[in-house]
Amino acid sequence: MSRFSFRTDFSRTPNPLAEALARHRGLPPLDLTVSNPTRVGLPAPDAGLLHPPGALDYAPEALGLPSAREAVAAHLSSRGPVISPGHLVLSASTSESYSWLFKLLCEPGDDVLVPAPCYPLFEHLARLEGVGTRPYRLPLAHGFGLDAGAVEAALGPRTRAVLVVNPGNPTGHFLHEGELAALADVCARHGLALLCDEVFSDYGWGVEPHRVASVAGRELPMLTFSLSGLSKVCGLPGLKLGWTHVGGPPAARDEALARLEWVADTYLSVGTPVQLALPALLAHAPVFQEALLERVRGHRRRLVAARPPGAPWDVVPAHGGWSAVVRIPREPGDEATCLALLDAGVLAQPGYFYDFDSGAFLVLSLLPPPEVFSAALGPLTRVLGAAE
Amino acid sequence: MSRFSFRTDFSRTPNPLAEALARHRGLPPLDLTVSNPTRVGLPAPDAGLLHPPGALDYAPEALGLPSAREAVAAHLSSRGPVISPGHLVLSASTSESYSWLFKLLCEPGDDVLVPAPCYPLFEHLARLEGVGTRPYRLPLAHGFGLDAGAVEAALGPRTRAVLVVNPGNPTGHFLHEGELAALADVCARHGLALLCDEVFSDYGWGVEPHRVASVAGRELPMLTFSLSGLSKVCGLPGLKLGWTHVGGPPAARDEALARLEWVADTYLSVGTPVQLALPALLAHAPVFQEALLERVRGHRRRLVAARPPGAPWDVVPAHGGWSAVVRIPREPGDEATCLALLDAGVLAQPGYFYDFDSGAFLVLSLLPPPEVFSAALGPLTRVLGAAE
Repeated sequence: MSRFSFRTDFSRTPNPLAEALARHRGLPPLDLTVSNPTRVGLPAPDAGLLHPPGALDYAPEALGLPSAREAVAAHLSSRGPVISPGHLVLSASTSESYSWLFKLLCEPGDDVLVPAPCYPLFEHLARLEGVGTRPYRLPLAHGFGLDAGAVEAALGPRTRAVLVVNPGNPTGHFLHEGELAALADVCARHGLALLCDEVFSDYGWGVEPHRVASVAGRELPMLTFSLSGLSKVCGLPGLKLGWTHVGGPPAARDEALARLEWVADTYLSVGTPVQLALPALLAHAPVFQEALLERVRGHRRRLVAARPPGAPWDVVPAHGGWSAVVRIPREPGDEATCLALLDAGVLAQPGYFYDFDSGAFLVLSLLPPPEVFSAALGPLTRVLGAAE
Repeated sequence: MSRFSFRTDFSRTPNPLAEALARHRGLPPLDLTVSNPTRVGLPAPDAGLLHPPGALDYAPEALGLPSAREAVAAHLSSRGPVISPGHLVLSASTSESYSWLFKLLCEPGDDVLVPAPCYPLFEHLARLEGVGTRPYRLPLAHGFGLDAGAVEAALGPRTRAVLVVNPGNPTGHFLHEGELAALADVCARHGLALLCDEVFSDYGWGVEPHRVASVAGRELPMLTFSLSGLSKVCGLPGLKLGWTHVGGPPAARDEALARLEWVADTYLSVGTPVQLALPALLAHAPVFQEALLERVRGHRRRLVAARPPGAPWDVVPAHGGWSAVVRIPREPGDEATCLALLDAGVLAQPGYFYDFDSGAFLVLSLLPPPEVFSAALGPLTRVLGAAE
């Protein structure tokens, strides 16, 4: 008899929305769940960049080719403190970066703290490494900002690290200086590392006082890992390149880098062509980011403007990212509302996908092409308005 | 205080040969350790293949793009039984495939059986998943062939799988029908999965009766995974694409595929450009393989011919792969011999890197450019002949 592991024993039961979508007949719904930046008419770089000279010549470098690490360091340094290429580790994706960090920091049976609500990936990534997760709540009252007290309250005896998503996904809250200071204090007192997911940090919609765009290159008392990659920075998820900046007390940082080099050398998972193309791909980032920001800001403005006075729903305040969170009445709630929206020709995500717990919420992508988003606003406001 | 995991607590002490190499002055040694197929003057495909139409358009498919899986199935079917694309899982590398299979089959604390002597990677890959390894010996008396009795004797109470490298690396022994039948019996009686590393299986130097080139597509009583990829099949390690064929009893096979799809979906680690280019890259494989085979057969012939009658060393019989194993006198042994070779201007690997235990051995790459290999034969035979 074949036996499989507990860590891969995930439920494969489709949720009711997926089942309804599979049964859906007629025109495809207007998709407000799209997350693929290559399919919404945003500017792409020249595909000729993908075969730079030497693309087939293999030069295994565990942490990444020096030229690629220098390009990432220059990109990050243009947005904040000066970053050393020697403190960067390339990987095929932030998912892979997480898998390496969980291996680095955790024995099987240890755990890490993860935010809730949040995009539901960390639990799976941790579980596959034999690592548990303990949620800490982002309070709605703080606009889903970080509450260091909630982090400390969630600690267990085998907790090794805290994950922060900055800005939150899908909640769009940036870390503030005061929150980071309180969090650093908790980490230092309990010997926790900070894993900071900064894939959306270039996507602030405006400026806020005391915003922390990145923890990379800051003087912090704990081991600190900042993660990002081409998927969001350039809208190129198919090219498979992510990076991790390692910071914190120098001795711990250097030991972490030496161990990560060893781990990375075991997999050597980053392709040569994309590493060689990286300087040119990052040079394209501003073009992509400007077009994307114009779109998401415009969509959000139109969504807020579409709300009639006194409507039983509202757009939750946020400051960045690619999504909008809409608070809706508890009755009929998020799943029933998404099913009603699908009947009306609009696909949206219920808040429970993201572990919202303090009310009912929808999550809407702000990426769709303008004609799709505009066409969806009518049915959306009609269905949401009918809740009362 | 920062604490790091046991599973990443690898020794970083350089071995004496690495230290001697770092101290080496003068001309770089003639390198008989080269394993990078892109640096030895073998034919490469046209780099323009790397930006096929749609290369920047992301279509996430956990198991791999259908067109890419079909190309792998066609490649495998041309060399053995017909393979269904539905039984293939793409990954970024065989290293990643192993990490997924260890997660699939093992709880932390379980273990797998690994061959010895062997290329030293499995212990690290397993350890990073919280999985142990137990070596089973490949007996020199059988030409380092598989001894099912040694496999069964190595079993522990938490052993979940057996790894076989076919042909062995660096030992170059292909699995034979009788060995596979005996191994299948052990696997079936003990509920073990078979993980068969077939990255070198296209590199048989001749034909042998009863050779098993691949376990993919065969009727076997146990869950069976056959691994290979572009690195060795096309000599393109920098492009990062591997594959796993899943076979065995249909219910177990389908459950394995469903779980692997889930795991693969968590990482989505294979780049789009290389998947789209795969049919064209595999079409280039015969050109590369023919050139490589001509080289390794020629080098091996020259090595055997260079041995003077009565010399105290001999080339171990083998039937495929990219290496030659040379048995040398126990005194002064493999490390001292490698250090003497380095003094004579030749870099070779000592057998202990590969966990040979029944004598002293050297491992020589058969990939070097002809002028390098030929120039190394003089110092090699001189140093080896001086042992007596």
